[in-house]
Amino acid sequence: MIIVMSRQAPEAYIQAVIAKIRQAGLSEHISKGAEHTIIGAVGDERSLLVEWFETMPGVERAMRVVREYRIVSREIHPEDSIVQVRGRPFGGQVVQIIAGPPAVESEQQMQESAVLVKDNGAALLYAGVFKQYASPYAFQGLGVLGLEYLQQAGLTQALPVVAELADISMLEVLLQQGIDVIQIGARSMHNVELLKEVGRLNKPVILKRGVSATLSEWLMAAEYIAAGGNHNIIFCESGIRSFESSYRHTLDIAAIPFLKRETHLPVIAAPSQAAGKAWLVPALAKAALAAGADGLILNVHPQPAKALCEADQVLSPAAFSDLLAELRKLAPILGRSL
Amino acid sequence: MIIVMSRQAPEAYIQAVIAKIRQAGLSEHISKGAEHTIIGAVGDERSLLVEWFETMPGVERAMRVVREYRIVSREIHPEDSIVQVRGRPFGGQVVQIIAGPPAVESEQQMQESAVLVKDNGAALLYAGVFKQYASPYAFQGLGVLGLEYLQQAGLTQALPVVAELADISMLEVLLQQGIDVIQIGARSMHNVELLKEVGRLNKPVILKRGVSATLSEWLMAAEYIAAGGNHNIIFCESGIRSFESSYRHTLDIAAIPFLKRETHLPVIAAPSQAAGKAWLVPALAKAALAAGADGLILNVHPQPAKALCEADQVLSPAAFSDLLAELRKLAPILGRSL
Amino acid sequence: MIIVMSRQAPEAYIQAVIAKIRQAGLSEHISKGAEHTIIGAVGDERSLLVEWFETMPGVERAMRVVREYRIVSREIHPEDSIVQVRGRPFGGQVVQIIAGPPAVESEQQMQESAVLVKDNGAALLYAGVFKQYASPYAFQGLGVLGLEYLQQAGLTQALPVVAELADISMLEVLLQQGIDVIQIGARSMHNVELLKEVGRLNKPVILKRGVSATLSEWLMAAEYIAAGGNHNIIFCESGIRSFESSYRHTLDIAAIPFLKRETHLPVIAAPSQAAGKAWLVPALAKAALAAGADGLILNVHPQPAKALCEADQVLSPAAFSDLLAELRKLAPILGRSL
Amino acid sequence: MIIVMSRQAPEAYIQAVIAKIRQAGLSEHISKGAEHTIIGAVGDERSLLVEWFETMPGVERAMRVVREYRIVSREIHPEDSIVQVRGRPFGGQVVQIIAGPPAVESEQQMQESAVLVKDNGAALLYAGVFKQYASPYAFQGLGVLGLEYLQQAGLTQALPVVAELADISMLEVLLQQGIDVIQIGARSMHNVELLKEVGRLNKPVILKRGVSATLSEWLMAAEYIAAGGNHNIIFCESGIRSFESSYRHTLDIAAIPFLKRETHLPVIAAPSQAAGKAWLVPALAKAALAAGADGLILNVHPQPAKALCEADQVLSPAAFSDLLAELRKLAPILGRSL
Repeated sequence: MIIVMSRQAPEAYIQAVIAKIRQAGLSEHISKGAEHTIIGAVGDERSLLVEWFETMPGVERAMRVVREYRIVSREIHPEDSIVQVRGRPFGGQVVQIIAGPPAVESEQQMQESAVLVKDNGAALLYAGVFKQYASPYAFQGLGVLGLEYLQQAGLTQALPVVAELADISMLEVLLQQGIDVIQIGARSMHNVELLKEVGRLNKPVILKRGVSATLSEWLMAAEYIAAGGNHNIIFCESGIRSFESSYRHTLDIAAIPFLKRETHLPVIAAPSQAAGKAWLVPALAKAALAAGADGLILNVHPQPAKALCEADQVLSPAAFSDLLAELRKLAPILGRSL
Repeated sequence: MIIVMSRQAPEAYIQAVIAKIRQAGLSEHISKGAEHTIIGAVGDERSLLVEWFETMPGVERAMRVVREYRIVSREIHPEDSIVQVRGRPFGGQVVQIIAGPPAVESEQQMQESAVLVKDNGAALLYAGVFKQYASPYAFQGLGVLGLEYLQQAGLTQALPVVAELADISMLEVLLQQGIDVIQIGARSMHNVELLKEVGRLNKPVILKRGVSATLSEWLMAAEYIAAGGNHNIIFCESGIRSFESSYRHTLDIAAIPFLKRETHLPVIAAPSQAAGKAWLVPALAKAALAAGADGLILNVHPQPAKALCEADQVLSPAAFSDLLAELRKLAPILGRSL
Repeated sequence: MIIVMSRQAPEAYIQAVIAKIRQAGLSEHISKGAEHTIIGAVGDERSLLVEWFETMPGVERAMRVVREYRIVSREIHPEDSIVQVRGRPFGGQVVQIIAGPPAVESEQQMQESAVLVKDNGAALLYAGVFKQYASPYAFQGLGVLGLEYLQQAGLTQALPVVAELADISMLEVLLQQGIDVIQIGARSMHNVELLKEVGRLNKPVILKRGVSATLSEWLMAAEYIAAGGNHNIIFCESGIRSFESSYRHTLDIAAIPFLKRETHLPVIAAPSQAAGKAWLVPALAKAALAAGADGLILNVHPQPAKALCEADQVLSPAAFSDLLAELRKLAPILGRSL
Repeated sequence: MIIVMSRQAPEAYIQAVIAKIRQAGLSEHISKGAEHTIIGAVGDERSLLVEWFETMPGVERAMRVVREYRIVSREIHPEDSIVQVRGRPFGGQVVQIIAGPPAVESEQQMQESAVLVKDNGAALLYAGVFKQYASPYAFQGLGVLGLEYLQQAGLTQALPVVAELADISMLEVLLQQGIDVIQIGARSMHNVELLKEVGRLNKPVILKRGVSATLSEWLMAAEYIAAGGNHNIIFCESGIRSFESSYRHTLDIAAIPFLKRETHLPVIAAPSQAAGKAWLVPALAKAALAAGADGLILNVHPQPAKALCEADQVLSPAAFSDLLAELRKLAPILGRSL
């Protein structure tokens, strides 16, 4: 950590900062500049807090030098990590497509969705089970029954299934049902208890980015999971909140290459969720692939006009097939396969 | 709901929209404008979804006419609601001060904090118990033991206590300890399961605004609680995420008068949490009071230099006393008392 | 326009709204709903202002039905418009690459840049002339002399040139130098006087998006130019300001397909400017192409280590060649050529 | 400046950084930490650019130590500066109220507005002259004639007048009319040419914050003016763009105390412009005063229902009187007078 003293900070203030550094088991390194004295704390700065210094008299600013995240960092682990989901590798040369409806609505709808997913060569089946909508008067999902329909549909088509864990109390039932991948939604990315709990499992986790999470906060959320021992983490960019209201969220396309550089873990994108408009999805899906995404989560519904929720973001079966065909042509040009 | 058809939308598309409206049990009202045909859906529009219409061919846009929230709305309940916390009314003429340290650190620290709070005439005692920090390597709070220290300190000084509920699994222990007010933090505002659970209680709830929540989403989160039967809701503005990084969050001061107009429920503010810098707190606290806040949550620590977390946002005992003295002079000019 | 009256608005208030509508030369259409009376204003709503109604007693909300922009709208002009720049069509099947250094630094640097641009098959030459940096102590550009170097370099390589107009006072000199395309930078998008002035010319204009401009404001800025008679407008997405500070701006990739649907005019992207980091540019450039961009503005410098400004965002000659080779392979898969 | 080298950066890379520092006339200071080598550049770091180092191999990050702004900084000039406007001091104990209509509409409207301003004890008269609206089809202001009406009204009531300079081409006419204070609007804050031009004058300047400008960018814009020799700068917080769309902009209340600490120059606020809704103005005006603002810009109109633009944000004469009466009671409690 680097501590910048104010101009004219008296020697006593400088000594107090040094004492604080030594007290934490680090040593100091002093540089007297033209305008400011700068003190470096030499040692493991993760044991220091910026605020310890910024509240001391005579200190103008304290700055971290090293990243706070460690296990998920490419600095520590330079090679790409592959996260395996029942034989489907995430983070390697193959681009993985996860697809399904925003919500489980019925047994038949799930079976039809799974057929769509399978027939179009997607790798995993997803469906929303415990819906977290903004309105208490909207469709709230089928709950545990929905989970069963999802799991059955996955088994019928031999597709691994992904389900979202929105609250710790639901973890038991997800595990009992044998869900293959646990998704932490954008609303739960900051739920530290949930992250810790998932960190104790030995199961792949898709970690969506909170809509107002910085890349650094997102990486730290993954670090919480990794610190518990579970390193099977897949990042998923699903849009951030900006001032633009023409679409649900703003897909932060630069987050994909940025994360691929910062972390060794796979990074996928969720264009349907980001856009909230089906007609925008093909452009965003192709863009995400071109930007280096290791996979995509796409929403498809056998009958969009009858979708109980998020009808505006689901692809029709025809649009889904067309998009997958386009992606399949695009991938080889980008050095990937699909 | 109002459905605007595209220019040149053929009659068949208009008829399909009408059929959809009737199917939902409402009736239509058609207006042929210079450029667009506009269809109004007459009846309870809460049973309609914008997306049902926006995905139909020939529809350009669908717009809600009425607010989605109902119970918390001042439109339905024009008079101010008073939320009582063991004889301390929130939402009336008195401005209520909630104060305490960001985290319970020890029994002694809590006892000293409670004395500070009591001696300066604040109304309730707050302390962070289950810390939800961005880093797994930071102080994580004392947990249940911290809750006991908090509760004991409150009892000793005859102060009602406020604690945050970050996960449903912790509700039982909060209830057992007899916590007086349950706080839903900014990170949990979107946690629908938590909102529903708290909606079943008969206990005051402080509902902080998510850092990227619109006012409308915040009001809907309260509606979730209210829909469960618990109307003892206190809104707390604690800052939003903007592009400005000079302070932790941007206190959205206009949210206070806006909410006071939209809802009959009390609205307070948390300047310490928003600013993340103690020296900004007095200015923000006075501003919040001037803007009409019904109360404030302030962070104070008996020895700021020894605070284990958020040391930069805690007021020292002296600064806390000074601020309360200033607020006490300010309140009467604004028609309030403190 | 649709005017929603408050619940229980008395008849007199409704009559006042009707009078206001008639006064503006439109007629009214009334619909009494379950909770609210809704009044539609039938006629050309562009002559009405939302605020006229929202400030009247008993009015809850007024909402526009039609878009405010007209000339640039695809609704009015369904076919794609092609903007010609000395034989290089923007908006058609060909993807156009505009490239050059962020700033003119010397005659030699411009000549070398132009060779790079030409040799790699890019279509137009760009360079910053009047730099608008945040600091008065930074390099401010070469001014008129820089413009001459740029123009000479373009002539030598037979490349049309693009220069930015930051202030009306500079228009004369740009016209005298025979600049082929005038660029309105992100900082000037809201400068109405500038837009009007450029609207009187018969010259292609690249209109960059302001970093906090909504898509609707951006389209209205183009409408200002178009209203003056100049329809040769090329939109350029160059990033918006979000809370994320890992890159200069957030490239709003969804803006590309969104604009392509809203307007008939060409839409290009500026990944170098958005990213502010050269290593991010290839991923963003490919993503923009995949999302449907009609062209790209790329920053390249013959010797990045010697660049006087924005050295972190310029591609080296080798990286530029590699990227163009990649884009050239990608374009045909997307139905484009380059 | 501090340059953090990557882990395992070879010695040659470190030497290259040192050479670059020496080349710029500074000297280096090296600190070998546990994980990273850190190099400090000792000397005037304003002559260095972060990007020079961040683009060098082996460099992970470069960080500025000192502020880029100097003349406007309180670090350099610890005492408050008072900006005098014909005997009205800004930045001292007195809170100054600037008031008037958003636009000059007629001679009579300006005369009536000036009477309102004078009678309620406000200090300066403001009116919009060259309107910069988002739509080319909206009222565009009266231009030079409006400027005359404004100036006459000011003279009649012996009130100094404030007018906005939106383009350099208008400066001459503002100076000829003898305008007392030149306002740089939010849309022009980034217009470097305009800032430089105004820096050459000897006239007070109100510098509004761009809606997406960071505090640091805003201070640098002022530095541009100050670097030209004009130190009569008054900062005006008028709202930033956030995701919240319930009001025009988000008044960043914390910017007031933050700027008062960073700069010695006066800081005022424009609640009418920020809110865009007249009913929010009293709460925001009182909050700004409580947060330490040295003055306010308020919009008032003799007949709001007849306002040609921004009718929703103007106070009625009665509301204006009431608000000034409230502010007059509030000021003494805050140690100010009005």
